[in-house]
Amino acid sequence: MQFELQAECPDTGARAGIIHTAHGKIETPVFMPVGTQATVKGVPQRDLETELDAQIILANTYHLFLRPGHELIRKLGGLHRFMAWPRAILTDSGGFQVFSLSDLRKITDVGVLFRSHLNGDAHLFTPESVVDVQLAFGSDIIMTLDECLAYPASHEAARQAMLRTVRWAQAASQHYRRATQATVSNSALFPIVQGSMFNDLRQACVEQLLPLDAPGYAIGGLSVGEPRSLSLEMTELTVPLLPKDRPRYVMGVGMPAELPEYVARGVDMMDCVLPSRNARNGYMFTSAGRVVIKQTRYKDDPGPVDPNCQCYTCRTYSRAYLRHLFQAGEILFATLATLHNLQYYLDRMRQIRQAILLGRFRAYLDGVRSAAVE
Amino acid sequence: MQFELQAECPDTGARAGIIHTAHGKIETPVFMPVGTQATVKGVPQRDLETELDAQIILANTYHLFLRPGHELIRKLGGLHRFMAWPRAILTDSGGFQVFSLSDLRKITDVGVLFRSHLNGDAHLFTPESVVDVQLAFGSDIIMTLDECLAYPASHEAARQAMLRTVRWAQAASQHYRRATQATVSNSALFPIVQGSMFNDLRQACVEQLLPLDAPGYAIGGLSVGEPRSLSLEMTELTVPLLPKDRPRYVMGVGMPAELPEYVARGVDMMDCVLPSRNARNGYMFTSAGRVVIKQTRYKDDPGPVDPNCQCYTCRTYSRAYLRHLFQAGEILFATLATLHNLQYYLDRMRQIRQAILLGRFRAYLDGVRSAAVE
Repeated sequence: MQFELQAECPDTGARAGIIHTAHGKIETPVFMPVGTQATVKGVPQRDLETELDAQIILANTYHLFLRPGHELIRKLGGLHRFMAWPRAILTDSGGFQVFSLSDLRKITDVGVLFRSHLNGDAHLFTPESVVDVQLAFGSDIIMTLDECLAYPASHEAARQAMLRTVRWAQAASQHYRRATQATVSNSALFPIVQGSMFNDLRQACVEQLLPLDAPGYAIGGLSVGEPRSLSLEMTELTVPLLPKDRPRYVMGVGMPAELPEYVARGVDMMDCVLPSRNARNGYMFTSAGRVVIKQTRYKDDPGPVDPNCQCYTCRTYSRAYLRHLFQAGEILFATLATLHNLQYYLDRMRQIRQAILLGRFRAYLDGVRSAAVE
Repeated sequence: MQFELQAECPDTGARAGIIHTAHGKIETPVFMPVGTQATVKGVPQRDLETELDAQIILANTYHLFLRPGHELIRKLGGLHRFMAWPRAILTDSGGFQVFSLSDLRKITDVGVLFRSHLNGDAHLFTPESVVDVQLAFGSDIIMTLDECLAYPASHEAARQAMLRTVRWAQAASQHYRRATQATVSNSALFPIVQGSMFNDLRQACVEQLLPLDAPGYAIGGLSVGEPRSLSLEMTELTVPLLPKDRPRYVMGVGMPAELPEYVARGVDMMDCVLPSRNARNGYMFTSAGRVVIKQTRYKDDPGPVDPNCQCYTCRTYSRAYLRHLFQAGEILFATLATLHNLQYYLDRMRQIRQAILLGRFRAYLDGVRSAAVE
């Protein structure tokens, strides 16, 4: 994996670049659609590639470890081949899911013991095993196991979790080096900065992760219930401490209007379930604000969801038809709405990137802030 | 609507033709995918057209009358525009659904009073209103209201239902002529032959429907619980009584191996929910028999569902991946499996048509009968 910095905004921290992977290039800043169980819910891979032009998608280590299992995926040629997705994949560490989905969780320095939400089976994730699982996937970007706290957390709890996250990142990094020593690995390992909402802990975490000389760094522990202003504040504090020549990934954000805010703070990569999950629930993002498709006002509306959108859904179907599908509980709605919402996010990020490359990001950001329609 | 007869099998009743409609041609014999609520469940219209090359789909009068309503569909430019489907559409009369889905049903010669399965509202379908509803849709082929009995039915009950079906067809036909007198209508009205499993009633029904000089005739009241041999027997008896120069449509059949059997008896059009419904339940039709995708044997199977199939699903995904999607309850499974099953049915019908055109249908039929894998 190589990161090429192409342009920087003179007024903000925004930057445009290209991450080169064994599965193609990723133009940054980038929004990564979430494909938890090796599928972006309702969207065929062909559409992700040719309609949406997504360059990287996210998959979930916890879910795929439990089902169908990493050994099965390895046997079938890795995650790319398994899910027939030729472009880049990032897998998270599973830490977030273990802490939020799993029943039993026993955390020690060795790792975390948890019960499957599917059948109650007990499993142990260690910093080392999570690297092995992701190497079996063959993901282009893999993440270290971290301890992710809910908000709010006490300073002491946050400090302990941060220190453990650092120790796990060190162990993961060491294990990764050993495991990939003999072979060429195309999987780049990113550590995760934790520290809850405490400046000193975020700073201390970065300081201890920098010696790992990782090819990229993530900021985790955000979007866990804190006010949105706080997520941005933590990002603003953390990013400048990270190496300039490596991609920076903020996990789990955000709303459309927040994308340029994170970019303005020097973030290169983001992911979020919002566009896909909201789509399935009938909430669609448009250039004129949110469309809640079940509303009666759309009953006989012959226009597209967003007249400024070029996605398959907007090119083809009316709001009236989409409302009908939603009201009738038809699964085609999920597909069409997800296609649209993802296109909206990806287009927005492409506009942001274009603005940075053309030296117009400041104006773009001001425009978004003054419009503030979501 | 015009029907052009292209070829007839010298040994069986099979024939190939083209139905010309205002929304393109329909090459017969044809299998019509079912799109009950103005969507073939899980399949975008683009795929129906460019992947599957379906030339006509079926939609449901009862369901669309209740939701979103025929006046709404008329206002939005008719069913084709509403659902963004440029090719032909056939709508059934709603009779079957009223008799099988609706709670309250009060049948008189005037029509049938029923309660919506959605909210309990009372509605009246008359032979005339059902024509009006379908004219509002603008379907290329519309059906007369019929009384469809479950199997078994007594001769007397069947006789009464058949006579009412005839009277309703006469009323529908008369109303249709009046309603379309002033304007050019592209909707062709087909009456439905009833008579349960009684030869004399089927024959009497045809005799009374022939004076309507309809552009096509349907055989209804099959696939209602009777043995499959009986459905074929009724078809075999009825078809020769129908005009040779009009398309013949058997409603609601059948299994893949039955398609050539109906064609051999002179049937031009068929529809069935089996390929789409079975797909969603994990049952896939293949050239080597049925694949029940949840079976453990497919867990690590890297091959396509059907190595002889050229559909998007088989070109792209492994059985192992499809099984994973099914087990994980992912909606992409429904889309991919439906695409495959529909392609299987449509390909099969295209092979049958090709065999008839090349004068090889007898050999094709013998081959299917001796293979008998489903």
